[in-house]
Amino acid sequence: MCELLGMSANVPTDICFSFTGLIQRGGRTGPHKDGWGIVFYEGKGVREFRDPSPSCESEIAKLVQDYPIKSCNVVSHIRQANVGDICLENTHPFVRELWGCNWTFAHNGQLKDSEWLSLGKDIPIGTTDSERAFCWLLDKLRTEFTCMPEDISKLTDFLQVHCDQLRAMGVYNMLLCNSHYLFAYCSTKLHWITRRAPFGQAQLKDTEMTVNFAGETTPNDIVTVIATEPLTDNEVWQQMETGELLAFKEGLRIVGTDT
Amino acid sequence: MCELLGMSANVPTDICFSFTGLIQRGGRTGPHKDGWGIVFYEGKGVREFRDPSPSCESEIAKLVQDYPIKSCNVVSHIRQANVGDICLENTHPFVRELWGCNWTFAHNGQLKDSEWLSLGKDIPIGTTDSERAFCWLLDKLRTEFTCMPEDISKLTDFLQVHCDQLRAMGVYNMLLCNSHYLFAYCSTKLHWITRRAPFGQAQLKDTEMTVNFAGETTPNDIVTVIATEPLTDNEVWQQMETGELLAFKEGLRIVGTDT
Repeated sequence: MCELLGMSANVPTDICFSFTGLIQRGGRTGPHKDGWGIVFYEGKGVREFRDPSPSCESEIAKLVQDYPIKSCNVVSHIRQANVGDICLENTHPFVRELWGCNWTFAHNGQLKDSEWLSLGKDIPIGTTDSERAFCWLLDKLRTEFTCMPEDISKLTDFLQVHCDQLRAMGVYNMLLCNSHYLFAYCSTKLHWITRRAPFGQAQLKDTEMTVNFAGETTPNDIVTVIATEPLTDNEVWQQMETGELLAFKEGLRIVGTDT
Repeated sequence: MCELLGMSANVPTDICFSFTGLIQRGGRTGPHKDGWGIVFYEGKGVREFRDPSPSCESEIAKLVQDYPIKSCNVVSHIRQANVGDICLENTHPFVRELWGCNWTFAHNGQLKDSEWLSLGKDIPIGTTDSERAFCWLLDKLRTEFTCMPEDISKLTDFLQVHCDQLRAMGVYNMLLCNSHYLFAYCSTKLHWITRRAPFGQAQLKDTEMTVNFAGETTPNDIVTVIATEPLTDNEVWQQMETGELLAFKEGLRIVGTDT
């Protein structure tokens, strides 16, 4: 199994605090030593950092931890390999273009018989069940819609049906982002928290580190963090239910026909 | 105009020396202050670093310069913007999947009327003429071949014709890599050098830095570096001719039906 981390915010926000918690689980407080990756959106562009070596030892992870890259949408993943060798092309998150946007995908879980998932124009580069599921999903999206649907509920309904299909093949916890929306789908384990004024203090579970968000934010900031397991031990995280799909935009959970 | 840097080698080699020379031109010895990027292949995977800020001031460029990432294929670019805003999605190199491989593209020059280049399934994310030319080229490749041709001359012949078409629209110096081959096409300016035993000393043109490759290599190493302008001032670089396409594999220039 792996661990997922996502962020959706209404102002560019750094994820140094949460990322510091996550990477402890990459070989120190957790067994996820088979690589890690993080994707930051900046406008329509992405900054991508990936490493097949354990995150707790990675020079590049150290840069990401120390250098506050600010972004409104972030997807990160630390890996404990089950399907596919430990190598760069098998390291999440995966990024592909669809409808002129960068789509970023990270998966926690395992899918049986993923080689039966049909492919269109997107061909996997690595050998993971996860990347194949992403290529399959992109092909289904391309077939169903010619561009990003204006009514977002058409997209969430579509993702619900197709994520349910993938969950039926095994375990499928997913983060998916297209620079505007961050989607989270829960199969077995995914938690989220929305932080907004009045901001308080948070204490990481995995290492000695506390942050006072009140000193780092403005009263209008809204930041949602999604993670496999809660990253802090003094805040209330919401647990997602099996089969639940959530969509976030600018830090807020959206419902229905938000555009 | 921009500057290009590429490397093809038969053993994983770091490009710290050449990259150090290149990034001086990103705001210090050259005017290319509108961003920079570098892509390192590791197997079929890629490590991508990009920044729309000047390379000579970039924290991430400093990491790439100091941390020896070893690779057999590298493509890098520093940008002086002409078409498209200065932002991350307009920062070269561009990477897309084709036939289950990562293809990396960087362009120096300017193309007139690039909006007339037809598109298939690959849609530009940014607004540069360069990314549009890349998407056009990928569509032509997808239409002509269903997978990587076994006879590489079929691919080089195809690229020659299509790069000539792009050159007819303006200035088109290009580096293109697919993890096995590095292709270089010259419109106005591109130089290359192949280093092999007996290795000697090299002195950067753009900053005080000398390296003795004999101390960094084994007798079997073969490393070709391609750059807009020669990066060293005590070695003989070969100048490419207008309309010339070269293909390199494992550090060696290949001709004809190499597979």
